[in-house]
Amino acid sequence: MADPVITLTTDFGTASPYVAAVKGVILSINPVVRLVDLSHDIPPQDVRHAAFFLASALPYFPSGTLHVVVVDPGVGTDRALLYLETAGQRVLAPDNGCLSEWIAASGQPPLVRHLQEPRFWRQPVSHTFHGRDILAPVAGHLSLGLDPAELGPLVSDWILLERPALTPVLNGIRGEIVFIDHFGNLISNIPAASVGQRPERLIVGSHTYQKITWVRSYAEAKPGTLVALISSSGHLELAVVQGNAALWLKARIGTPLTVCYPG
Amino acid sequence: MADPVITLTTDFGTASPYVAAVKGVILSINPVVRLVDLSHDIPPQDVRHAAFFLASALPYFPSGTLHVVVVDPGVGTDRALLYLETAGQRVLAPDNGCLSEWIAASGQPPLVRHLQEPRFWRQPVSHTFHGRDILAPVAGHLSLGLDPAELGPLVSDWILLERPALTPVLNGIRGEIVFIDHFGNLISNIPAASVGQRPERLIVGSHTYQKITWVRSYAEAKPGTLVALISSSGHLELAVVQGNAALWLKARIGTPLTVCYPG
Amino acid sequence: MADPVITLTTDFGTASPYVAAVKGVILSINPVVRLVDLSHDIPPQDVRHAAFFLASALPYFPSGTLHVVVVDPGVGTDRALLYLETAGQRVLAPDNGCLSEWIAASGQPPLVRHLQEPRFWRQPVSHTFHGRDILAPVAGHLSLGLDPAELGPLVSDWILLERPALTPVLNGIRGEIVFIDHFGNLISNIPAASVGQRPERLIVGSHTYQKITWVRSYAEAKPGTLVALISSSGHLELAVVQGNAALWLKARIGTPLTVCYPG
Repeated sequence: MADPVITLTTDFGTASPYVAAVKGVILSINPVVRLVDLSHDIPPQDVRHAAFFLASALPYFPSGTLHVVVVDPGVGTDRALLYLETAGQRVLAPDNGCLSEWIAASGQPPLVRHLQEPRFWRQPVSHTFHGRDILAPVAGHLSLGLDPAELGPLVSDWILLERPALTPVLNGIRGEIVFIDHFGNLISNIPAASVGQRPERLIVGSHTYQKITWVRSYAEAKPGTLVALISSSGHLELAVVQGNAALWLKARIGTPLTVCYPG
Repeated sequence: MADPVITLTTDFGTASPYVAAVKGVILSINPVVRLVDLSHDIPPQDVRHAAFFLASALPYFPSGTLHVVVVDPGVGTDRALLYLETAGQRVLAPDNGCLSEWIAASGQPPLVRHLQEPRFWRQPVSHTFHGRDILAPVAGHLSLGLDPAELGPLVSDWILLERPALTPVLNGIRGEIVFIDHFGNLISNIPAASVGQRPERLIVGSHTYQKITWVRSYAEAKPGTLVALISSSGHLELAVVQGNAALWLKARIGTPLTVCYPG
Repeated sequence: MADPVITLTTDFGTASPYVAAVKGVILSINPVVRLVDLSHDIPPQDVRHAAFFLASALPYFPSGTLHVVVVDPGVGTDRALLYLETAGQRVLAPDNGCLSEWIAASGQPPLVRHLQEPRFWRQPVSHTFHGRDILAPVAGHLSLGLDPAELGPLVSDWILLERPALTPVLNGIRGEIVFIDHFGNLISNIPAASVGQRPERLIVGSHTYQKITWVRSYAEAKPGTLVALISSSGHLELAVVQGNAALWLKARIGTPLTVCYPG
């Protein structure tokens, strides 16, 4: 049987020693764990970025994988810490909405517990680093076979971020940019199904683009061309071939995007 | 026997969820794989950077290691995807020249196949993320022992980047800067053998340096000194001690570098 | 028994192929090693940063873990390379002070050897990359069970960085900023015990702050508030809630920090 995998997703960067401390604590509890870094470059305290990231990453992992998420601007307050199971994945994370998108994407009700059993925590528990003192040791114990029921009570409430709006408009649909990737590609919340019939024009922020080059993949157009395509996650995406659409279009997370069909 | 290693080299960065998706797909097919990150910081779509990187990294791995390379500006076009074996290393990568330098360095003809068997791919295959949908699952299957002959036909053509020129000139040799590392050190394509007899002067771009401080290692000269030395890969390198030669000399990849001997 | 873990801490970044080469060399000697990245983002040649990082990270690892540290501005000079054991951790590192803080924190005399046995090194040894040519192969051999006594003689001298000063002043204590983390939080060398009785004011650099908001965790104050708290390592820390204290206060490593009690 394979040694257990624990994945790590944080906003710690790696110039700071926080990721290393989390890894050390986990390995101290279960020396055979295989640690898999998903990201330590979630923008600091950006729960919405984390939510998109996790919804895009978690579905690809084998059933039963344990994921530790530490994007935790509310550390030390009374925000809860969660153990959450859905669609075969197990996640330890602060209750701040970072799992919203993934819960929505999984299409099934999650099983959620509050972590309330200090006997599985590192003592003393600091006020500023629950990733090291609570989530990491709990992950270690779970990877050793601890029954999640030991961690704390089932709960039926958790924080869900307001989902980016998707609104029908005259002859079209309006969504927004929900993620900007490392290449500057703009990924929206408008599903592929809504753009099956190719729209006449796009409105990005306050600017209307009349002549959109629709492609299936980036390299179908010349370098420097603004193109529209379906992203690898199945949504409308805007890109500049071998360029950076976010810079070119001055778009940000939350910039409105409207697709318009011939009226 | 050791669980198989699969290394990953991409231009995805880790703020985006793409690396995580690739890791999830591989682990879903072979849960015992040990994933080893080589880099996710190849500059976006910089095939030439990837080519230098791989030639410098791959020779150090144990024979039989499987490497997945996703620097793929041509994703979704008819560019081929390759399985390549040479000098004991096995690589899955787009056919875009990213393996040029390593093939040249290995000094032997590689064995190359086109990936043409969709039964080893993730379905449906997206148009924009073949790393996740083709290379990752093929890597998973190979790590389980799949015979590479199952992947597709042997081919005898693949893309080779034009290699940076190395030209004899009057009383010297002209090459160019082929890599700039994290410290700003400038690594050229001029082999150590060509600088065995210490040159009189260097021409970097359009600027001539008459008094070069030749060292064996950076710390032999004072901080701030421009030094010339033999790089850890065996080529002429320019560095500024505890400084950044790329900034200081305003040099880039491709900047010409000439070494001149007494006439 | 768990396959051995080797952790890696470098200032190489990952756009360069140096980390990959180190990993390849280790795996070539011991194919079952589990490589754990602590950081490749130590600022270039910043031995002091590395010293703080290691003191904050190493204590969390299971006893017997082997750590390779390559922050090595003196590579190729006659600076020694060390094998060091203390508080259950084993470290291979250049003798440049990068282990100072951790030796101090461990509170016990370390056992230290000079690496002097070329038979465990990669040949030929370059002048500029001892991480790849000496530390990596030695780590591989140690992970296979090599007796550290084989590596070279015990020594009783090693480089210790001057520790940041902690000075009693009239009605208070003066220390300094010793680390700035990824969030811009300023961590000082003033221990929690010295701030148990809440000070009246703080002097950061040349600026006096009369009204300090003392919190236990960041989120107890409103976004944008400058707060003082005890860091997760047990020292006085200054932070701006959901902001960057280093930018706000124009503070750097070494900026003096004084806590003053009512006179």
